[in-house]
Amino acid sequence: MKVVVTGGAGFLGQRLIGELLRRGALTDAAGERRPIDEVVAVDQVAAPATERVRSAVGDVGDAAFMARAAAGADSVFHLAAVVSGAAEADFDLGMHVNLDGTRALLDALRTEGHRPKLVFASSVAVFGGALPEVVTDETTPSPQSSYGVQKLIGELLVGDCTRKGFIDGRAVRLPTIVVRPGRPNAAASSFASGIIREPLAGVDAVCPVDPRTSMWLMSPKAAIANLLHAHELPAGRWTGPRSLSLPGLTVSIESMLEALARVGGDAARSRVKMEPDARISAIVEGWPARFDTARADAMGFVRDGDFESIVRDYAREYAR
Amino acid sequence: MKVVVTGGAGFLGQRLIGELLRRGALTDAAGERRPIDEVVAVDQVAAPATERVRSAVGDVGDAAFMARAAAGADSVFHLAAVVSGAAEADFDLGMHVNLDGTRALLDALRTEGHRPKLVFASSVAVFGGALPEVVTDETTPSPQSSYGVQKLIGELLVGDCTRKGFIDGRAVRLPTIVVRPGRPNAAASSFASGIIREPLAGVDAVCPVDPRTSMWLMSPKAAIANLLHAHELPAGRWTGPRSLSLPGLTVSIESMLEALARVGGDAARSRVKMEPDARISAIVEGWPARFDTARADAMGFVRDGDFESIVRDYAREYAR
Repeated sequence: MKVVVTGGAGFLGQRLIGELLRRGALTDAAGERRPIDEVVAVDQVAAPATERVRSAVGDVGDAAFMARAAAGADSVFHLAAVVSGAAEADFDLGMHVNLDGTRALLDALRTEGHRPKLVFASSVAVFGGALPEVVTDETTPSPQSSYGVQKLIGELLVGDCTRKGFIDGRAVRLPTIVVRPGRPNAAASSFASGIIREPLAGVDAVCPVDPRTSMWLMSPKAAIANLLHAHELPAGRWTGPRSLSLPGLTVSIESMLEALARVGGDAARSRVKMEPDARISAIVEGWPARFDTARADAMGFVRDGDFESIVRDYAREYAR
Repeated sequence: MKVVVTGGAGFLGQRLIGELLRRGALTDAAGERRPIDEVVAVDQVAAPATERVRSAVGDVGDAAFMARAAAGADSVFHLAAVVSGAAEADFDLGMHVNLDGTRALLDALRTEGHRPKLVFASSVAVFGGALPEVVTDETTPSPQSSYGVQKLIGELLVGDCTRKGFIDGRAVRLPTIVVRPGRPNAAASSFASGIIREPLAGVDAVCPVDPRTSMWLMSPKAAIANLLHAHELPAGRWTGPRSLSLPGLTVSIESMLEALARVGGDAARSRVKMEPDARISAIVEGWPARFDTARADAMGFVRDGDFESIVRDYAREYAR
């Protein structure tokens, strides 16, 4: 089968492709386990190509490009997005990639006529405004950022195209993924990886939010496992809405820094400078940090054990 | 000031334009009451033009046309839409008019740079699926039709463009409007007007749903009053989300037919034939019929008195 990964050159995309190749097979829309013949990494930059991985470089908001890139796909993991901070700073760019891109993909898939599977990486940024202490499966999404609005619109379109029988779509709301390797990005949450990653590499880092702020987090490992689980679950297990919030960990910045100290020592901890930034604080504090993910738990999605293990995993994999 | 009415050649659009001309003035975004110099009726067919009313004929999903039609608008009433049944039958048409059209309008308005007012006619079709007995301001919209999805996406975009300061948007969820004059349309709710309108004109009508089915209804008069109220309310009164459900009446088909008999006599009542239609029943029964509209009530939106008065008003105005 042919698997398309949008955002395939990115961190999560590359990690997902690695895991797809390792597993070698996926369950198709008919419930049959089939070998993966080809993975197409769709992104604005080239992804490493191998015997089974093809890189398709282009603009996901360009319908003609997406129609070519997604042609014949049996399964799609739609990760491509302009991140929160960038979508807020450049409204047109966010709308183009996050909304037009999702529409272009859905149009490409539905005209295929064979009801491909689609896993859509949504975000807890669909929640905002006046929220209960704990967000549940019944809480009304009320995004307070253009990114969150665009992700929620994506969920609605994925849901409607599934209801219409065009695709078999599953949208999962990812917590903030920590620890991301590499360099900071334009996400308002970028610092949450930075305050772990930079100190472990002997580099100073800035924390722009109050240390008492809590965040809803997931490790890259759990994110990949959950994206694949979302794909592999039989359609019959997706009763109710085709969108759900994934299990995460509620962790305060203070606790994150304590875990950093335990893994990297006081020298690492002392590299984090507190420099409050009103713009980033406003965005991050608007994100809910506590969830009851009963539905996802019952469907077998996984939760990280504790934050210190996430830091140790990162240190083992990347900080060598 | 310049006022644009999309769907301006339609029933509600024409009635709204008549009321705008009668009032002669509106409150602008700065809170100042200003005379209406020009009304532009944007529609796919020509609207009657007068000294102060200009007809702009084109495709609301065409961004260039909408940019021209909405240029310089101080206020917009966005009523244009492919109705529920048609959007379900032709997915592309619904997406084009209901989603692209709203985006084209929002893009036109925000590039104006003077933050025009926008009243968006949304629909209770944003609700569906497993619903509580009474839909409240806290109930999560979960549309089960492409029309409902497209309206909810419109609400989200209006809300985000308002948050960003591009426009001053207000989205109101209209109940089913009864009694519409003229001819049946492709809305799944079309029959609800037909079973009153046709018998009063001495014509047979078909009721495709179970008479015990209840619907959430509003008269054309209340709809126009509420669209204008949504516009006139100061921005400070729109705390919280920029979308809300309007007050309506919960009326069973049986009660509607009893009101018909009281106004038009047994002869009129006997012209309605019960012919269940599974497709229409499924759509209409999926719509919620009971609402608690506390927020709209507190904001001064109006509710019809009773259904018989709606029928009498219709008979007096149109059935002569």
